[in-house]
Amino acid sequence: MSESQPASELSHEPENEESASVSKKAAKKEAAKLEKLRRRQEQEAAAAAARAQSAEPEDPLASYYGDVPLLELQSMTIADVKDWTEVGALSEALKDQKVLIRGRAQTIRAVGKNMAFIVVREKGFTVQCVATVQPEIVSRQMVKYVAALSRESIIDIEGVVSVPDVAIKGATQQVEIQVRKLYCISKAAVLPINIEDAARSEAEIDKALQAGEQLVRVNQDTRLNFRVLDLRTPANQGIFRIQSQVGTIFRQFLLSKGFFEIHSPKLIAGSSEGGASVFKLDYKGQPACLAQSPQLHKQMSICGDFGRIFEIGPVFRAEDSYTHRHLCEFTGLDLEMEIKRHYSEVMDVVDRLFVTMFDNLNKNCEKELEAVRRQYPFEPLKYLPETLRLTFEEGVQMLKDAGVEVDPMGDLNTEAERKLGQIVLEKYGTEFYILHRYPLAVRPFYTMPCYDNPAYSNSFDVFIRGEEIISGAQRVHVPEFLAERAEACGIEVKTISTYIDSFRYGAPPHGGFGVGLERVVMLFCGLNNIRKTSLFPRDPLRLAP
Amino acid sequence: MSESQPASELSHEPENEESASVSKKAAKKEAAKLEKLRRRQEQEAAAAAARAQSAEPEDPLASYYGDVPLLELQSMTIADVKDWTEVGALSEALKDQKVLIRGRAQTIRAVGKNMAFIVVREKGFTVQCVATVQPEIVSRQMVKYVAALSRESIIDIEGVVSVPDVAIKGATQQVEIQVRKLYCISKAAVLPINIEDAARSEAEIDKALQAGEQLVRVNQDTRLNFRVLDLRTPANQGIFRIQSQVGTIFRQFLLSKGFFEIHSPKLIAGSSEGGASVFKLDYKGQPACLAQSPQLHKQMSICGDFGRIFEIGPVFRAEDSYTHRHLCEFTGLDLEMEIKRHYSEVMDVVDRLFVTMFDNLNKNCEKELEAVRRQYPFEPLKYLPETLRLTFEEGVQMLKDAGVEVDPMGDLNTEAERKLGQIVLEKYGTEFYILHRYPLAVRPFYTMPCYDNPAYSNSFDVFIRGEEIISGAQRVHVPEFLAERAEACGIEVKTISTYIDSFRYGAPPHGGFGVGLERVVMLFCGLNNIRKTSLFPRDPLRLAP
Repeated sequence: MSESQPASELSHEPENEESASVSKKAAKKEAAKLEKLRRRQEQEAAAAAARAQSAEPEDPLASYYGDVPLLELQSMTIADVKDWTEVGALSEALKDQKVLIRGRAQTIRAVGKNMAFIVVREKGFTVQCVATVQPEIVSRQMVKYVAALSRESIIDIEGVVSVPDVAIKGATQQVEIQVRKLYCISKAAVLPINIEDAARSEAEIDKALQAGEQLVRVNQDTRLNFRVLDLRTPANQGIFRIQSQVGTIFRQFLLSKGFFEIHSPKLIAGSSEGGASVFKLDYKGQPACLAQSPQLHKQMSICGDFGRIFEIGPVFRAEDSYTHRHLCEFTGLDLEMEIKRHYSEVMDVVDRLFVTMFDNLNKNCEKELEAVRRQYPFEPLKYLPETLRLTFEEGVQMLKDAGVEVDPMGDLNTEAERKLGQIVLEKYGTEFYILHRYPLAVRPFYTMPCYDNPAYSNSFDVFIRGEEIISGAQRVHVPEFLAERAEACGIEVKTISTYIDSFRYGAPPHGGFGVGLERVVMLFCGLNNIRKTSLFPRDPLRLAP
Repeated sequence: MSESQPASELSHEPENEESASVSKKAAKKEAAKLEKLRRRQEQEAAAAAARAQSAEPEDPLASYYGDVPLLELQSMTIADVKDWTEVGALSEALKDQKVLIRGRAQTIRAVGKNMAFIVVREKGFTVQCVATVQPEIVSRQMVKYVAALSRESIIDIEGVVSVPDVAIKGATQQVEIQVRKLYCISKAAVLPINIEDAARSEAEIDKALQAGEQLVRVNQDTRLNFRVLDLRTPANQGIFRIQSQVGTIFRQFLLSKGFFEIHSPKLIAGSSEGGASVFKLDYKGQPACLAQSPQLHKQMSICGDFGRIFEIGPVFRAEDSYTHRHLCEFTGLDLEMEIKRHYSEVMDVVDRLFVTMFDNLNKNCEKELEAVRRQYPFEPLKYLPETLRLTFEEGVQMLKDAGVEVDPMGDLNTEAERKLGQIVLEKYGTEFYILHRYPLAVRPFYTMPCYDNPAYSNSFDVFIRGEEIISGAQRVHVPEFLAERAEACGIEVKTISTYIDSFRYGAPPHGGFGVGLERVVMLFCGLNNIRKTSLFPRDPLRLAP
């Protein structure tokens, strides 16, 4: 690995062959470090063993429970995944069988000195486990140990499956585990937020309040500060599996339509597309910036005869936007394709792709959607088998008819977009539609004007629940015209010369669009904040964790 | 779009609602701009129409050929994709049928004044088209127009399929098209490099040289300077489709094994993992850097109970490495998973994943691999149905037995890795194997030491054709121990405190690995430079195009 560039490993070793030859002095230092580590490890092992044995010296059943020493977690035991049962797989079919599970101690409750209940959670599924004092099997000391476990600790339980007569509340699985052995793999410290508090819906809090009970409400910022805890709620377990599914459907659909996937550079020379919303940095002495989108390079790929391509990757916007729907870094789903005759070819792809996506999400993510809905109630998205297309002019007219005056050659503001969404829903019964032929003046410089009126453009936006999620268009593929348009839009042409030059050697008519992954998930699930659908969100005020 | 954040559109419009309300002055300016554009468009249309009609005023067949005016390419015609035939689909079955194709004029050759041949290329497939003067069908002026086309121009051809008696050299399709109509969609300027020069193998050049002919050799840097032309070679068309396939197989395999996909932030607070190889930037007044890998956040996702996750995304290394295998930005394929008992569980995934990948590439990318092989000959990768695993100690011993002395507690340098690759190939017949239990001192701070000897670690590297491509390990999941290890490795603990803190609330044993996508493609195809498998490579000297 001396000169390697491993993808996931943060190497702190020198990267050049030369400097890799460690000096004698360094080697000595290294040896001392290792010796210290070796001593520490021995002490740790001895201490752990002692703890396990001596904490309750009088207990002959002491080997059935206790803290697992780190030594054992350092792969001392041979791997055998066959003997594990997932919590989600626990069912009546396993009655009287011995099982081995690993999960988190979600709640721990002692009943006197002879019994303790633990709800164990794994991947959102929960099972109730009970340790009851029984001679030769479970000692009183073991029950004491169980009762003293801290919430969210990782534990292994070996036990026998039983089926109680009454329904089990507070656990997803309708079986109980009679604990035989219980070992703690990783102890949790005192929690800054409780998972059940973080998992609570607003409705629950309100209902309790009416009954005179004040329940804890975890606000958005606290959630994000302790994101690794917040992520453990059923809703978040659902959200990020849905997010993964959106990406998967996007890819699979496009691969089946002759697209393939590219990876364009995020480090761009100069200030690229200019403007204040660019993150700038120094690249080996050259001024550089982070790509605001894969726009330039996906079009250049089309000039490289790639025909139909897509990309899923981070895009960076240094905007000072403090809204519920803006982030400084988000995941772009982008595509670009050759056009034979009309920009509607691109809208055709939008239509088929998203109808397929919504159908599949509803079918394949039922459990995940239900988990989200329990905390954040929402109505399933209304969409048509064939996506409605309206022109911008029609949209403006519909708004006008409803008494909303907007600039017919300007852009729609958020309020007008919402209002139009309502009108469309009432008139056509859909919350997903395409608005096309936008005024040219409100679109980026590379947008192709309409053939019959250059005040309009071959462009479109797509809306879910009254909010814009997709922006797309046919692009200008004629280099001279492109340069002219850039200049007209106040962009210094020489800063994008490599981009413009790529159209000089024959460029097919083409178009494409981009979608924000986090927005798709947010709006499909009717969530109120994009920070809920970004794993570790970045906004003007947040750069951690 | 006024306050939108469209994923692919480089908005140059103000992003805030307030500033979006365009002032009257700006509106006037906008109107003037549009008026100019409208005039330009009208002139262009008139000129194009005039050209088409008047270039050869005496030709009654003038409407059968000519430059398509931009106006028509602005989606004037209704889309109808049904009437197009792909060049790759042209076969004898279409004999005597009329077809419509779009592609590039790869070569143009006039034979006297009555005949012109054009080889048309689309997505790597080529077909020979012939325009022959025929009364009422093809005029002499049309043949002249065809003969004057510039290479790489995009053209539409309508014609009749014929099947010649002799094999057609210099085209992939064994049919010919008798041209009836030919329109130029986009004219190419004079090319800085010719595609056939860029597509030539070293063997061809050498062979020609022996015959006394000096053929053009396009060097790597020139290729990258004119990347949009270079990408059009059959080898590059193959390489990037293979790259897409590698990502697809990686995802599909992992999805089928219970993994899901995450997107971790690339913008990281502070200088993150420290060291010189980090790109630094200013994030709204805070010091920030670009993630050198998704390492920290993928582990934090495991602490968030994600169980098994993967990510495909850019990683950034500000290294001054000028080798054939280092880039400043590349695509990382990363995964992280809970471990029940042993780090071999991670190596099991490596084994199944990559054997599946190689099998599928050989099966599904036959044409693409053949295209690469024609320009860059290579032997198919030798690998075993079950991947060989050797310990680092065994590797060192094998080298020693072969007379190569290496530091048994140091790292292997590139030369030793190559040598070991040769020995393994001779002894086991595989060019793909895992080397595990590396000395702890040469691994990152978060690597778990071995239970039986802390001088070694639960880590592994994976090699293809003697070069390292994967680095992986079990991680330290105990926060106090992790902090201790970080300190021992000279990392300021407080700079990674959010990372270390995420292990405080119960953390399961876990491990993972990372692979560089570009390296996988490079080594699977036996290529000699990673710049060949990166779409728009970034190295210490290259930030464009």
